[in-house]
Amino acid sequence: MNFVSRLEKAITERKSLVCLGLDPDPALMPKVSIAEFNKAIIEATSDLVCAYKPNLAFYESLGIDGLVALQKTVEYIPRDVPVIGDAKRGDIGNTAKQYAKAMFETFGFDAVTVNPYLGHDSVEPFLSYREKGVFVLCRTSNPGAEDFQSLLCSLPGKGEGKPLFAIVAAKAKEWNLNGNVGLVAGATYPEELKQIRALCPDMPLLIPGIGAQEGDLALALRYGIDAKGKRTIFASSRQILYASKGKDFAQAARQAADKLRTTINSLLKTAQP
Amino acid sequence: MNFVSRLEKAITERKSLVCLGLDPDPALMPKVSIAEFNKAIIEATSDLVCAYKPNLAFYESLGIDGLVALQKTVEYIPRDVPVIGDAKRGDIGNTAKQYAKAMFETFGFDAVTVNPYLGHDSVEPFLSYREKGVFVLCRTSNPGAEDFQSLLCSLPGKGEGKPLFAIVAAKAKEWNLNGNVGLVAGATYPEELKQIRALCPDMPLLIPGIGAQEGDLALALRYGIDAKGKRTIFASSRQILYASKGKDFAQAARQAADKLRTTINSLLKTAQP
Repeated sequence: MNFVSRLEKAITERKSLVCLGLDPDPALMPKVSIAEFNKAIIEATSDLVCAYKPNLAFYESLGIDGLVALQKTVEYIPRDVPVIGDAKRGDIGNTAKQYAKAMFETFGFDAVTVNPYLGHDSVEPFLSYREKGVFVLCRTSNPGAEDFQSLLCSLPGKGEGKPLFAIVAAKAKEWNLNGNVGLVAGATYPEELKQIRALCPDMPLLIPGIGAQEGDLALALRYGIDAKGKRTIFASSRQILYASKGKDFAQAARQAADKLRTTINSLLKTAQP
Repeated sequence: MNFVSRLEKAITERKSLVCLGLDPDPALMPKVSIAEFNKAIIEATSDLVCAYKPNLAFYESLGIDGLVALQKTVEYIPRDVPVIGDAKRGDIGNTAKQYAKAMFETFGFDAVTVNPYLGHDSVEPFLSYREKGVFVLCRTSNPGAEDFQSLLCSLPGKGEGKPLFAIVAAKAKEWNLNGNVGLVAGATYPEELKQIRALCPDMPLLIPGIGAQEGDLALALRYGIDAKGKRTIFASSRQILYASKGKDFAQAARQAADKLRTTINSLLKTAQP
């Protein structure tokens, strides 16, 4: 089964559009190891979320120990919950092939996030894993997204331009020959999210920015949701992981994940006709 | 001493603008471990190159063993030769901080390559390490560079645009408050390289694409070189590392590195008035 089908299955079975970001930060965590922390979080939430999304930065910053913990984390996740490696990789073709191998084979992620700045040959090695998912960064959730992603761009001599993120979305659609492309579109830019969904009605969208980054969940859901409500997932990390710093951290994370899941499902009823 | 001074010192002492990419590919290497391979290559070339540049993809694809080999590799490199971690990372501020920690503290690189697509707050955590170098991807050497980097971009209502890579170069200049920013500009696009050097006359340029990618070295040197000839480095990897697959691989790499160094130095004499 390919990534999109697996994701839809997890969404249906769990009635959840919550993608839990596994971004362990020792400064915010209770005093346990990263692997223990993630294991407890996964055990407490795996019936409530449709995907997990470890961000590699949080593991790399801890060196080899961190990366060993990342490997263990992937193993702890039940097979029917897809794992998205939030890596934002991008390099020239020959090198991108190595990154694709690292993400899909070595670490065993079911999907990955990639950066489009280097163009088609930097993304193609990921796309060629037909059963795996590839979320292309389109409009990110951070303030710096304005710097380049909003610029009006055009081909020389082709008249009025479109925002760079819209051109990226259109390219991602072109690249989607294997039906395994998704887009990252931040909740913090709802109007742009609306444009992206209009351009790509059926493409899986990974929407960060609803928690600590304070994007408007209701608006993001209204503008981002697809017709069937099965291809739009909302990433949350700090809000769930660090709901408590005490011994009850896993139980508190479960409650926070369930609350978000329920909130999204209520909003979904009013958003869909 | 900050990164740019260290790089200039290595260039002066070794009379070399060669940056050797340490991208070990088991399919092309002789039958030795990655760490042994890199150690032999480093011992054979460290008086001939101004910097080493391990690309993280080649280590990540080998999992934990690869990353342990990467750590060892950094340790093998003499302290007076700067090490550029070719990581092309880019993420939102909170996460970029973790990547910066990973690259500069955990792996101990002297400089790193970063992807600008997410804008200022994705690059800032790297820039704030004042003694470290940050090479921002500007115009990459690969075919896909055309997809987005050449688009003519403008701010809404600001009239005719400039190519995205030129806007990135201008932003990188703005961001360079600590004097630690450089740019990546591929030899495969000489006209663009010329524009980038005109925009940023004193900024360190890391120029890939002269070897297996067949960029024109003479043209790249003419268009890319700075006034003092101390802030322009040429990355080569496969051409040097795999000069021989036999037992003489390190000696063959030495010869290939020396040949490239000599060729660049001859071209430098004719390129500079």
